[in-house]
Amino acid sequence: MRRFPEPIQNLAAALTKLPGVGPKTALRYVFALLQLPKEELLQTAILINELSEKVKLCPHCFSYTQKDLCEICSDPRRDNSKLCVVETSRDISTLEATGAYSGKYFVLGGVLNPIEGMTPEVLRIQPLFQKLREQNQIQEIVLAFSPDVHGETTMMYLTKQLAGFEKQLTRLARGLPAGASLEFADEVTLGDAIKGRKNLK
Amino acid sequence: MRRFPEPIQNLAAALTKLPGVGPKTALRYVFALLQLPKEELLQTAILINELSEKVKLCPHCFSYTQKDLCEICSDPRRDNSKLCVVETSRDISTLEATGAYSGKYFVLGGVLNPIEGMTPEVLRIQPLFQKLREQNQIQEIVLAFSPDVHGETTMMYLTKQLAGFEKQLTRLARGLPAGASLEFADEVTLGDAIKGRKNLK
Repeated sequence: MRRFPEPIQNLAAALTKLPGVGPKTALRYVFALLQLPKEELLQTAILINELSEKVKLCPHCFSYTQKDLCEICSDPRRDNSKLCVVETSRDISTLEATGAYSGKYFVLGGVLNPIEGMTPEVLRIQPLFQKLREQNQIQEIVLAFSPDVHGETTMMYLTKQLAGFEKQLTRLARGLPAGASLEFADEVTLGDAIKGRKNLK
Repeated sequence: MRRFPEPIQNLAAALTKLPGVGPKTALRYVFALLQLPKEELLQTAILINELSEKVKLCPHCFSYTQKDLCEICSDPRRDNSKLCVVETSRDISTLEATGAYSGKYFVLGGVLNPIEGMTPEVLRIQPLFQKLREQNQIQEIVLAFSPDVHGETTMMYLTKQLAGFEKQLTRLARGLPAGASLEFADEVTLGDAIKGRKNLK
């Protein structure tokens, strides 16, 4: 097959590092970029560059921020007695959108998945312990991971490891999602919904 | 909803210009880029920059190239009597992969689609005419567009416009794709396959 000019091939190869982007999609993206006005193309390059220069990790919660301390960690109105442990920075934004949580966060940096090299040493488990040791005001630790295999494994692991801290340990409720139909709910979800049933008055 | 740091938002907005990339996918890409080592991130920015600096249009066929003249136009072994008109640079690579064509190419730069602003003036129809006027050795013009609405419209338009040139005008054969099952072929394709049937000996 005829090869494209080198700059096209090289950028396409680099773009295959994006999640779910194979060689064909990457090439499609490169050709779309070629259609952009030169200034926009340059601007995109500058923005990618700025990403590495301007975005850093909040030293308190390890979420991405532009400042020395992220918005949430520097907000005096947030409840310091609650610490919500999440997988990634993005999860914080998803949880914040609900408006249902007013505590602080802690980004673990992934979930346990030894096959992909995500072992306890790679995750921020030691920094989490350190935070719990230093901040006595924390009373509740909310484990907010996806209820899939790796999320569950991580929550089981953390539950064991955090047993010594004498803090309240909670996890997100499982049950029927809003708008779900009983008829099509899977057994595990429905089982969770029955076990977690609530008083109506 | 909590907004991400500005550099993240800005790059995500820029990436939504890629085909099929909405705000959510764009954010996903930005977070994936943030996971890359700093050098790789920088390298990606440099590669995008190089795209605008190093890739230019071949002045003969208008495909992308790094040199003054593209590989195909500068190849003396290519058949100068055939000119294959395609929509984009990418189509050339697809056609070359077949090994079934040895002539030259011409990139029209799109297909007719007035709603999206693709009128005859936007396409390289005048440069095509000029090429046909200047290069007497061209005997056959192959219209290699996708047999969809816009491709067909473009081929009809070009057929009319090129009528005065006294060159042989051909188009890609329509019929059953390799590996197809008669049972599931649509009527138009099957009709094309019957009309275009070939002698077996």
